[in-house]
Amino acid sequence: MSTRAGIVVTGTEVLSGRISDQNGPWVSARLLELGVDVAHITVCGDRPDDLTAQLQFLTDQRVDLIVTTGGLGPTADDLTVEAVAEFTGRELRTDPDMRQTIESVIRNWRKYSDPLPASIVAAIDKQALIPVGAEAIPPTGTAPGVAVDATDGIPAILVLPGPPHEVQAMWPSAVATPAVAAAIAGRGAYDQHTVRAYGLSEPDLAVTLRDLEQTVDGFDALEITTCMSGGELEIVSRFEVGAAATYREVEAQLLSRHGDRVYSTDGSTIDAVLAGLFDGRTIGTAESCTGGMVAAALTDRPGSSAYMLGGVVSYANEVKSGVLGVPAELIDELGAVSEPVAAKMAEGARRVLGSDIAVSTTGIAGPGGERPGKPVGTVCFGLAIDGRDTVTVTRVFPGNRATVRTLATSAALHLVERALRD
Amino acid sequence: MSTRAGIVVTGTEVLSGRISDQNGPWVSARLLELGVDVAHITVCGDRPDDLTAQLQFLTDQRVDLIVTTGGLGPTADDLTVEAVAEFTGRELRTDPDMRQTIESVIRNWRKYSDPLPASIVAAIDKQALIPVGAEAIPPTGTAPGVAVDATDGIPAILVLPGPPHEVQAMWPSAVATPAVAAAIAGRGAYDQHTVRAYGLSEPDLAVTLRDLEQTVDGFDALEITTCMSGGELEIVSRFEVGAAATYREVEAQLLSRHGDRVYSTDGSTIDAVLAGLFDGRTIGTAESCTGGMVAAALTDRPGSSAYMLGGVVSYANEVKSGVLGVPAELIDELGAVSEPVAAKMAEGARRVLGSDIAVSTTGIAGPGGERPGKPVGTVCFGLAIDGRDTVTVTRVFPGNRATVRTLATSAALHLVERALRD
Repeated sequence: MSTRAGIVVTGTEVLSGRISDQNGPWVSARLLELGVDVAHITVCGDRPDDLTAQLQFLTDQRVDLIVTTGGLGPTADDLTVEAVAEFTGRELRTDPDMRQTIESVIRNWRKYSDPLPASIVAAIDKQALIPVGAEAIPPTGTAPGVAVDATDGIPAILVLPGPPHEVQAMWPSAVATPAVAAAIAGRGAYDQHTVRAYGLSEPDLAVTLRDLEQTVDGFDALEITTCMSGGELEIVSRFEVGAAATYREVEAQLLSRHGDRVYSTDGSTIDAVLAGLFDGRTIGTAESCTGGMVAAALTDRPGSSAYMLGGVVSYANEVKSGVLGVPAELIDELGAVSEPVAAKMAEGARRVLGSDIAVSTTGIAGPGGERPGKPVGTVCFGLAIDGRDTVTVTRVFPGNRATVRTLATSAALHLVERALRD
Repeated sequence: MSTRAGIVVTGTEVLSGRISDQNGPWVSARLLELGVDVAHITVCGDRPDDLTAQLQFLTDQRVDLIVTTGGLGPTADDLTVEAVAEFTGRELRTDPDMRQTIESVIRNWRKYSDPLPASIVAAIDKQALIPVGAEAIPPTGTAPGVAVDATDGIPAILVLPGPPHEVQAMWPSAVATPAVAAAIAGRGAYDQHTVRAYGLSEPDLAVTLRDLEQTVDGFDALEITTCMSGGELEIVSRFEVGAAATYREVEAQLLSRHGDRVYSTDGSTIDAVLAGLFDGRTIGTAESCTGGMVAAALTDRPGSSAYMLGGVVSYANEVKSGVLGVPAELIDELGAVSEPVAAKMAEGARRVLGSDIAVSTTGIAGPGGERPGKPVGTVCFGLAIDGRDTVTVTRVFPGNRATVRTLATSAALHLVERALRD
């Protein structure tokens, strides 16, 4: 039987929708990598009864491990450790080592002189309380984590803080605690592979997968999930290591049928794939509707200065003409959203920035700005590469302003990728 | 007693952490606006037993309404309607009107000719199945929603599709269904106000709130939550309408103590506040480490072409010199990450773009690039405004590359906001 886990994300700001949860997805992905099935993620506010109800729910669901994030701060509404102690029937006691650690973090951080203010001492005392018999996990911030062994009927519980960078930094030592190690000892050996495609639709992939189900022996051993986001289709296959040959057959079939659309078989994202294709060449951007998003994407990775020189955001037509040298008459005649303007923008960017490659975007992100024959979502792209003819393309993207801008940014990156791959 | 709701988000891609959930936060915020307390958000994969377990959990928690999102697609792993029908003891029957609606959406969309392929007919038939006695909510995509009345012991259940834009478009008609209206009829009349500040720390705010707790009558009637994100502190107060006078007193005290840090008392975000401050003036950007993110933020809003002319992403020093006219000797002497270079970048952007205002960023986003006296996270900003002396400022931001870039982008916007407010 597989090992199952549940994740409890605490925090009124997450429950109320004011911030999006980063910890649930991150912990879930890490557990899946370890071969642990995640059955449930639950989110609750800073109310002890609701938190206890979720712990009880996951216990009733017979998970082997509960991971909580959040609620370890120094204030009264941070109550996870207290709730877990009560739920597992343990008293809270001060851990002197942790108390010392927290105090030195705080002294170093806020540069208090002696004696510490009473409110700070109280905060340190609260955060150093650990359930009896549980293991404290050294903090990255000021809050130690806690790992509580499974006891009869109650799964092992791993308590982590809320800030995502603290969760991520503490994860390796948390997973190594005896409590967590014992809880996930029964997991299978799983492997997971991700194929990414651009310009491939879910229905078209579904047809292929239905065919492969009939023709590939052992297909059922693969758990394949697909997800379309920003015009990209992500195909994730998870399987026990014994099914690796089946997976290889499926991957080969995917490539043989949709190879022109697949841009990565090792899970690499478009920016990583692109980075590997520049091969000493430099790139620049000329953006109108995307307003800097393509340049931001191209500078997202460490080391991007090896290929990215810069860009011009020519939001106003005067900047398209004045900086990029797009003839004003061309804009007057055809409109700023036209392939000839996109071509001149890309060529202008190459000239102004001195790059080998330049990509341009000009479009109608909406909600206003519609023109006859150019609905909201229309975006023209230009691609100028040293020694090649400039190419242009027009796409019409669905969705609101933010979606159109995101899809156009992704399309610009993929336009460059296809050209460099050829 | 207050009205409580639970939200069930379905989808293996969300549970496994491959995409972040947008529906839970959005639905939660809408329910809170309606005066409904959200007790739990649960996430589950495409497994009927886990979904049923979550429905049972929320039922046991005595919520008045369950809202589900996702799992309404045409494929076999989309099982929410089926699971809800079984959970509420109802049969599934084809809704002929909905079947017609879905068919015409699909015909219009994929331009099928007669007869439709059998696989498409099967998909339409599946999506037109509605539990007996439930109300179908017309689809925005191809999947109708379903509203099921509360029956003894089981709360009302509102079933919505997965794509966020469909959820958002269908929400008004979903809330108006008799099933949902009856479930939330008992809600209180709540009001919610949001104050936003930049440069105010949570501990400093906590001191103020502790004081106000002692001095403002009826303070306990306010449920105040705070959230720090991207250097901005969001202070949300929720209260029954009778406590409005108390809230006004607290807000006045916040302004009197931290007014220089508060940039919005009506929940407006920085881009909205900025948009209202330009007053006919135009802006441009010159970005190095933020790589286009400031320009992207300034073009995020519809109508931003009224003030945003464009920007130069001068990632390479050659672009700082060649396009923005920053003297190469200045860069050689002081380094690209220096206030004089930031000043010249902003002034160059004003000149090149022809804008009244220009803001610049140059910094070390990391992980590499540290210089003596300039740790990773160091960012210099320049602000050039027509008729004023150019100002510069240096900040050192914590966190990884992505965090530094995000914090620097936010800081650039707030630098402009402070200057235009003065």
